[in-house]
Amino acid sequence: MVSKANAFYAQSGGVTAVINASASGVILTARKHKDRIGKVFAGRNGILGALNEELIDTGREPLSSIQALRSTPSGAFGSCRYKLKSLEENAREYQRLIDVFRAHNIGYFFYNGGGDSQDTAHKVSQLSEKLGYPITCIGIPKTVDNDLPYTDACPGFGSVAKYVAVSTREAALDVASMCETSTKVFILEVMGRHAGWIAAAAGLAQENADDAPHIILLPEVPFKKTAFLRKVKDTVNKNGYCVIVVSEGAKYADGTFLADAGGKDAFGHTQLGGVAPTIANMVKDNLGYKYHWAVADYLQRAARHIASQTDVDQAFALGQAAVEFALAGKNAVMPTIVRKSDKPYRWTIGEAKLSRVANVERKMPKTYISKDGFGITAAARRYLAPLIAGEDYPTYKDGLPKYVRLKNVLVAKKLPAFKV
Amino acid sequence: MVSKANAFYAQSGGVTAVINASASGVILTARKHKDRIGKVFAGRNGILGALNEELIDTGREPLSSIQALRSTPSGAFGSCRYKLKSLEENAREYQRLIDVFRAHNIGYFFYNGGGDSQDTAHKVSQLSEKLGYPITCIGIPKTVDNDLPYTDACPGFGSVAKYVAVSTREAALDVASMCETSTKVFILEVMGRHAGWIAAAAGLAQENADDAPHIILLPEVPFKKTAFLRKVKDTVNKNGYCVIVVSEGAKYADGTFLADAGGKDAFGHTQLGGVAPTIANMVKDNLGYKYHWAVADYLQRAARHIASQTDVDQAFALGQAAVEFALAGKNAVMPTIVRKSDKPYRWTIGEAKLSRVANVERKMPKTYISKDGFGITAAARRYLAPLIAGEDYPTYKDGLPKYVRLKNVLVAKKLPAFKV
Repeated sequence: MVSKANAFYAQSGGVTAVINASASGVILTARKHKDRIGKVFAGRNGILGALNEELIDTGREPLSSIQALRSTPSGAFGSCRYKLKSLEENAREYQRLIDVFRAHNIGYFFYNGGGDSQDTAHKVSQLSEKLGYPITCIGIPKTVDNDLPYTDACPGFGSVAKYVAVSTREAALDVASMCETSTKVFILEVMGRHAGWIAAAAGLAQENADDAPHIILLPEVPFKKTAFLRKVKDTVNKNGYCVIVVSEGAKYADGTFLADAGGKDAFGHTQLGGVAPTIANMVKDNLGYKYHWAVADYLQRAARHIASQTDVDQAFALGQAAVEFALAGKNAVMPTIVRKSDKPYRWTIGEAKLSRVANVERKMPKTYISKDGFGITAAARRYLAPLIAGEDYPTYKDGLPKYVRLKNVLVAKKLPAFKV
Repeated sequence: MVSKANAFYAQSGGVTAVINASASGVILTARKHKDRIGKVFAGRNGILGALNEELIDTGREPLSSIQALRSTPSGAFGSCRYKLKSLEENAREYQRLIDVFRAHNIGYFFYNGGGDSQDTAHKVSQLSEKLGYPITCIGIPKTVDNDLPYTDACPGFGSVAKYVAVSTREAALDVASMCETSTKVFILEVMGRHAGWIAAAAGLAQENADDAPHIILLPEVPFKKTAFLRKVKDTVNKNGYCVIVVSEGAKYADGTFLADAGGKDAFGHTQLGGVAPTIANMVKDNLGYKYHWAVADYLQRAARHIASQTDVDQAFALGQAAVEFALAGKNAVMPTIVRKSDKPYRWTIGEAKLSRVANVERKMPKTYISKDGFGITAAARRYLAPLIAGEDYPTYKDGLPKYVRLKNVLVAKKLPAFKV
């Protein structure tokens, strides 16, 4: 570890409603330790900012802007989907990182992202031992998919979970009002290509056994058409309507995504996305019910207006902890959330080694999925409920949330251009 | 007008985030005038409740529940899509209404709905003169489509407008963060089959000229593919990304809906909904950009969690005014919102004759649409801005909004069954 050096912070992968809260935690905490940390540079578009030597000087932003990041969704410095290869496969990129870090006296590397990003962070942490460049490397968890191991929850997930649960409850009331003469089946498609955490969270909308969502379709449970249609029919017969929440990653036993099963349209295009319309079609063809469907897409992960207080607090705390870890001499680790109790929810900060986090995907435990595969269990509720607790409203102006826009001033380049 | 009689209140057509606020206004105001209004019966599923003699006794609900209606979305008594024919075409139904009203001493009729519903209210108002049954008949405006004439705004619209503007701003930040290496075009589909009010409201998300939404596709402007694609390309070239908000009713010059233009899929199904995926396909095929799309569907009109304060206040005030109008001896009218000034927004209650409201559809004025047809003008902003102003958050429990569920106790039937 260097005694006084600048820091590099970058956002990676799909952005969330609270990743900027982590950025706020990092920058505000670093500013409190000017004796140890000089400037905080943010990568323009994540790790690409380091490779391209596009470093944003966060010191040019006033305190109020850095504080406002806490309630601004998306990635304020830009993010990217870019995975570093291994040192053996692409030594040139690692050498470039060292060149840029050295040119700008960067001794701290904070990388805010999901599984792939923690893998990148882990690789960067190897620069010290393998290439002799001293750098302290800390990962900061983030992903709406909630699939990082070792942490109770991943920042970003709680807010999507809240959005999905709230939207499900609201839309279900709408359908219930109208079902006698109109829509009987409503389908909401949510994110989660590999794990069903987000769809499962919709289950929190349910207060009583007959409440929506009546059916949750998870990637973890192979889709069985006959059982599904029977459940839809039974639900409509019993309640007059049926609300279905489906994960974009829902698939058949052979691994085919439901969303891919629609074939091609009259023009030869692959039928455009949407497991929701696919399910709607299936219901209509087999049961004849009037349906409606919604696809939340980016609306769900950007919905800072209905962010979970727990999620915002944890995102900020993890950013803060990352800097504190670095200052405490830790390296190649990621701060985590450790659950101390369910109710009341108590948590503290723990840590995990990047080498153990990288590329490990946490799936939903089987014990969270109801016996028929269409719902969640009491254990799942105990786990999920605290993650959506509390509201953390942004401030509004003229009816719209005031989200901060940074100046994002780039530092002068010192090196020749690099071709990524 | 009868001196003391019971009242019938019904919700009609597509429900909204604030129609229950109007119900709350009606019932709370009626309860203050027990000398003049006996019970308030609500129709189970709108006018069908009257025809089927399914009358909910709102007197069985505690004050706290009726107050909580103000912050509960959907139609608490059930709604329906059912349009009465004219007296000449279906005298039997009118006779049935009279039978039910007489059996339950109903002298006030409050009908809460859009254009079709005001037409029904108007027809019911003719019972007095044409069939000799004395009834005071007041319409209460409601429709997310904002297409009723004579009123500055229709309750329900302001909240959808706010939801759409907020969601557009949030999703646009997300896309902007990622556009360098990921999605370049994002498409949000919103409601509005005949008029573009809802899509236009997305324009409020824009603070500066280059902000999202970059393109709004309105039903009022015939879709021109070449001009559209050019605008998408120019926007991506200039800003790196392009956000499009499209009304479900967007159509070509020949009247074909964009959503219908996709033809049939490999199974011979009409390609399932969604003008958003249709537009996405067009962009991909012609410009090759990576895209994402969302379809808000019921989420937008049920989104009480982000309701407009103006909208909630107006919905309640119109319910209140309906009862006050009835008590003042008015008949066959609908209370309206009259705008006194734009900024600060000042409004008062006015009135319109049901005979003039029924079946008249208010379109967006041409002066609200920008010259190129892809945006809104300053005049549109002046009109729209106050309608989304203010937040009126519901209370939360365990991270979810607490929405009231009524007991909805039916009054004992006095008449033989009727086949609708």
